[in-house]
Amino acid sequence: MRKFIEDDFMLSCDAARGLYRDYAAPQPIVDFHSHLSPEEFALDRRWENITQVWLYGDHYKWRAMRGNGVPEEFITGGASDKEKFLKFAETMPRLLRNPLYHWCHLELARFLGIDDAVLSPKTAEEIWERANEKLQGGFSAHACLEAANVEVACTTDDPIDDLHWHKKTAENKMKTRLFPAFRPDKAFAFGDAVKFAEYMDLLSKASGVKIDSFASLVDALQKRHDFFDSMGCRSSDYGVDFPHYDASFSDAKAEAVFKDLLGGKSLDGVQECALKSALLIECAKMDFESGWVRQMHIGPMRNVNTAMFKKLGTDSGFDCMGEANYARSLACHFDALNSMGKLGRTIVFNINPKDNDMIAALIGSFQDDSCRGKMQLGSGWWFADQIDGMKKQMEAFSAMSLLPNFVGMLTDSRSFLSFARHEYFRRLLCDIMGRDMESGLLPYDMELVGNAVADICYFNAKNYFRFGGMQ
Amino acid sequence: MRKFIEDDFMLSCDAARGLYRDYAAPQPIVDFHSHLSPEEFALDRRWENITQVWLYGDHYKWRAMRGNGVPEEFITGGASDKEKFLKFAETMPRLLRNPLYHWCHLELARFLGIDDAVLSPKTAEEIWERANEKLQGGFSAHACLEAANVEVACTTDDPIDDLHWHKKTAENKMKTRLFPAFRPDKAFAFGDAVKFAEYMDLLSKASGVKIDSFASLVDALQKRHDFFDSMGCRSSDYGVDFPHYDASFSDAKAEAVFKDLLGGKSLDGVQECALKSALLIECAKMDFESGWVRQMHIGPMRNVNTAMFKKLGTDSGFDCMGEANYARSLACHFDALNSMGKLGRTIVFNINPKDNDMIAALIGSFQDDSCRGKMQLGSGWWFADQIDGMKKQMEAFSAMSLLPNFVGMLTDSRSFLSFARHEYFRRLLCDIMGRDMESGLLPYDMELVGNAVADICYFNAKNYFRFGGMQ
Amino acid sequence: MRKFIEDDFMLSCDAARGLYRDYAAPQPIVDFHSHLSPEEFALDRRWENITQVWLYGDHYKWRAMRGNGVPEEFITGGASDKEKFLKFAETMPRLLRNPLYHWCHLELARFLGIDDAVLSPKTAEEIWERANEKLQGGFSAHACLEAANVEVACTTDDPIDDLHWHKKTAENKMKTRLFPAFRPDKAFAFGDAVKFAEYMDLLSKASGVKIDSFASLVDALQKRHDFFDSMGCRSSDYGVDFPHYDASFSDAKAEAVFKDLLGGKSLDGVQECALKSALLIECAKMDFESGWVRQMHIGPMRNVNTAMFKKLGTDSGFDCMGEANYARSLACHFDALNSMGKLGRTIVFNINPKDNDMIAALIGSFQDDSCRGKMQLGSGWWFADQIDGMKKQMEAFSAMSLLPNFVGMLTDSRSFLSFARHEYFRRLLCDIMGRDMESGLLPYDMELVGNAVADICYFNAKNYFRFGGMQ
Repeated sequence: MRKFIEDDFMLSCDAARGLYRDYAAPQPIVDFHSHLSPEEFALDRRWENITQVWLYGDHYKWRAMRGNGVPEEFITGGASDKEKFLKFAETMPRLLRNPLYHWCHLELARFLGIDDAVLSPKTAEEIWERANEKLQGGFSAHACLEAANVEVACTTDDPIDDLHWHKKTAENKMKTRLFPAFRPDKAFAFGDAVKFAEYMDLLSKASGVKIDSFASLVDALQKRHDFFDSMGCRSSDYGVDFPHYDASFSDAKAEAVFKDLLGGKSLDGVQECALKSALLIECAKMDFESGWVRQMHIGPMRNVNTAMFKKLGTDSGFDCMGEANYARSLACHFDALNSMGKLGRTIVFNINPKDNDMIAALIGSFQDDSCRGKMQLGSGWWFADQIDGMKKQMEAFSAMSLLPNFVGMLTDSRSFLSFARHEYFRRLLCDIMGRDMESGLLPYDMELVGNAVADICYFNAKNYFRFGGMQ
Repeated sequence: MRKFIEDDFMLSCDAARGLYRDYAAPQPIVDFHSHLSPEEFALDRRWENITQVWLYGDHYKWRAMRGNGVPEEFITGGASDKEKFLKFAETMPRLLRNPLYHWCHLELARFLGIDDAVLSPKTAEEIWERANEKLQGGFSAHACLEAANVEVACTTDDPIDDLHWHKKTAENKMKTRLFPAFRPDKAFAFGDAVKFAEYMDLLSKASGVKIDSFASLVDALQKRHDFFDSMGCRSSDYGVDFPHYDASFSDAKAEAVFKDLLGGKSLDGVQECALKSALLIECAKMDFESGWVRQMHIGPMRNVNTAMFKKLGTDSGFDCMGEANYARSLACHFDALNSMGKLGRTIVFNINPKDNDMIAALIGSFQDDSCRGKMQLGSGWWFADQIDGMKKQMEAFSAMSLLPNFVGMLTDSRSFLSFARHEYFRRLLCDIMGRDMESGLLPYDMELVGNAVADICYFNAKNYFRFGGMQ
Repeated sequence: MRKFIEDDFMLSCDAARGLYRDYAAPQPIVDFHSHLSPEEFALDRRWENITQVWLYGDHYKWRAMRGNGVPEEFITGGASDKEKFLKFAETMPRLLRNPLYHWCHLELARFLGIDDAVLSPKTAEEIWERANEKLQGGFSAHACLEAANVEVACTTDDPIDDLHWHKKTAENKMKTRLFPAFRPDKAFAFGDAVKFAEYMDLLSKASGVKIDSFASLVDALQKRHDFFDSMGCRSSDYGVDFPHYDASFSDAKAEAVFKDLLGGKSLDGVQECALKSALLIECAKMDFESGWVRQMHIGPMRNVNTAMFKKLGTDSGFDCMGEANYARSLACHFDALNSMGKLGRTIVFNINPKDNDMIAALIGSFQDDSCRGKMQLGSGWWFADQIDGMKKQMEAFSAMSLLPNFVGMLTDSRSFLSFARHEYFRRLLCDIMGRDMESGLLPYDMELVGNAVADICYFNAKNYFRFGGMQ
């Protein structure tokens, strides 16, 4: 049987192989959005076994195992690491055509040196041994970054974070440059007045601003924004259920509603939406003033399985895809900022792939000469982060925007091994462009198309986020 | 000219051909959802001519003829069977790329022995003769089941049905095992108080329960559910316009609203939705307790052409695709059942293919260890039951769930010749998997991939529905 | 390097090449919807340079340039024609995979004789010279129509237009037959009472009907409809944000609301929708009586960038895609007309490709024997007018309707060079059908498939619009 992850994996023609070899593979990685732990960067995290690095905290794999009828005991429960691994190995042959099947084998090949076997119950014992030997033989977070040629990595951080782990990585001369991202989700969590008040206390302390009004909340966030900026931060990130915009919601109304909330009153749906809409605008203005890239992640429905939420909390694999109609609202939001002259670089990630076309068309109405490709449709996200989803995103981007200006891939991951997803994306990109060259839909000009590939893989993100410094 | 339905039809590469020949074609058919008549099973229905078996009752073909400008006279009207056939033959060359073009020729080849001609006005006379000769020469419903190797077939039945035709098939030793499915649509038809009351009378009689309250309606349905179960039924089926869920709708409210309805009062939209939501939950609980598979068919808009509805009634080709946003509501419905510990095996069929991804993601949040692949995205349904629609469904299933656990195809048909659609599905499935093998996206391991194919074609459905007995 | 626009451009197999050569390429063009200026037809417009014919008024190219960070000065501003062209040439290499990349090179090849170079900063000077030489050497609107073999072209006209330029083209014996289309958008613009009143004055003058009621508005439009019909018009066209239908909106209510509007009162959203719904029905009845084809363009969101709207006005590249759920409403609209016996030939164009399937299914419920393919899903429109969008539209059409009855392509353009989009569409169509022949999904019968191709490219549109005269 031929090797599964062979050199030409996903590359179906000469042009694709040439593009990948000469223009994509050589580029370093700029991973501008992840959920990796800055502590693990700073301390150069090591792992005792493959379960720790692979299965702890990876809710994609947890969902897959649940879908295969594996008891929770072997997923998030008390079973041993080896038992968990074996259960995952049992699940693998049922993952044919699932992105996990590719990701897992790419990760085994690229980081753990196992490229001569596919994972199944038959090979599970052997792979458990070989992987653990590699992990225990000095493999670490930094080794992983080096193997993947990661030039820049970004974390996702709460505004109250003091970023000391980020400082640490600079001090310990980690080769990869690590940047924080400003993600003020908790400052938008108006749904639970008690928890919100607790968070306001923490934010007050972190910022030195007493929060007793909407204006002072904005002030406190601005202080932390400034601090993040001083620490090299170049990006914010917003988790948005629905991108509300309410033009009639005045400052005075915002203050009144906010005071009710601080007073412990539950907001009704309309008030909550309006307040979110107002705060999103305020944060966007800060981002614009700092020249940051604003990332908007729109549309998930989270924690839909109450029983499991009570048991395991958030981010354990019980989220899914919303499907609201938000075109009008998002357009108004951008229009409001644009009318103030405060609409900066923005990447919109949509959870539901049916919205790719709508967003690609929408952002095209807000491009301008402040930057090449100022408004971006984000790469296939979460449930759409696989061949089919990435293809659809690139078709929409190609048809309605300028693909060579695309800032490309990010891992959005909680695992250090996920940098392999950049390779996955690059191979797909080269295959798409290469096939078009072979079929005559693109000029057969390696330099022309190759430069576009290199830009998408590396240069665009570096320039767009100004990771090389302010331009 | 080469044969149209040749051996390799739809199979574009060696791997696809190998998968089909060795793993798909040998499997019997488990057709777990159809609208076939149990009477025709029991009586081993015969047909005098091809129009009877092909054009009577097939609203797909009626729509096609209307789309070609054929007068209703030749569709559902008084024209002779032969005239109707000739009009359909005229329509055939205009059906290039329509699934009917494939289905029709597959059916001619597999059941009527006509695989050397394509149907057109030129060949119509000859095919009319040859088909009728075959039909009059002993071809029957049972011959059809045998030719297609149908191990299990299911009908769709009203709770008040006494299932005597099902009993009959067991008595007359039909080789195919026939199961009923419990479809209580009329118990949900709250829109017309008069008709509803009539149906309640029939249900009262059938169940022996006097229905004078919501609780007694549930009780009556439970009695019929028990009866169906005793007759071997393993599945229910719900036609759902919109999967409402209303958490605030208490038992007391349900009783009050139901009494109004029985009293002849028209419900308003909100009440109707809430009552449907409540009854859907009660039926789901019965299904769970019996270990049945629950099928939900979500989203059609029916009878949108009033003039033709008045003329021909339901199911005559005047339905179409809804497009409501029901992610949140469906999630809450599943969550409610799950919180009670009563969410059983469920297949969700969506009419609008734009919802494939949303549903595939949603059901992934409700998988558990009670069963491998407990929650299923149903195969491309109705308007999506063709190559493009089936592909999209399998892409969504692959990307967000575990394709090898898919319970696969069903005919959803009113014609005995439609079993050929299983072959159509299997060829497509093998082509998709085979191409992935050839291109390196799947390991080139015939056994690994072939077993997945065999499971999808046969074993999964048999196990999932427990047609082999309770496991 | 091989030529980019070679003979086999987009045609990937023998069957595709045969279909294109023998059945598609020979057909004249029937361009049944464009925004070309009738004046330019009549006066046989000439251009001094390529910027005038290519960049003036083409908001697709403007959006592309903005997406590449080009300052507005070089797009719609005061820069010279040559500077503008050079900036567009800079943008071209960033348009790989965008339809503009194909359209531009097809247009250079077919109309300006430049098929041996791709446009980029390197070739910009040379192409500027060569193109301008061609343009100044006698190339004109009529030369363009002749080169593209345009048999019929349609413009889009306001009901108050006296159509004197259309008369002129008949007088000056232009070979292409030019038809107007009746587009009463301004009669539906109830949002601004002042502007509406001004337009009512103009319409009163044009029609000779004093407009002081809804009934007299309808009467005035009918007069203009009659006039257009007498001038050979065969089609109306409606720009529809959302296809409202309000069954409860009586004539009396319409009169009351309309009087408020004429009295200068602003309508609320509900009133505006209801009035639009009522007028849409009235216009549809006129179309039916005249045997015209009704075109409905549904769903854009226009002028979403207020700052640029104030600067440049409408149609300058700041529109995008709506995403409303209008299946129910559109079905009711068709049903109402059908129940009156007044539903005529109708083409529905949807802006958002996610709606292709929904519309293809919906219109299938309103076909009848008045015409083959009476209800049509329009070709991929605006943002969907590219390979991916056209493919999706043809998949939906194929799967749920009768593709050989499709009336095919139109330019929807403001530039005379855009007739090349018919070639683009035809090549794609032939490639889709040809590939299906090669893979066995269609019979390998050139005549059978070729006739379908010829019908889609030419004969269907000609018959459907009755451009050959009333049938």
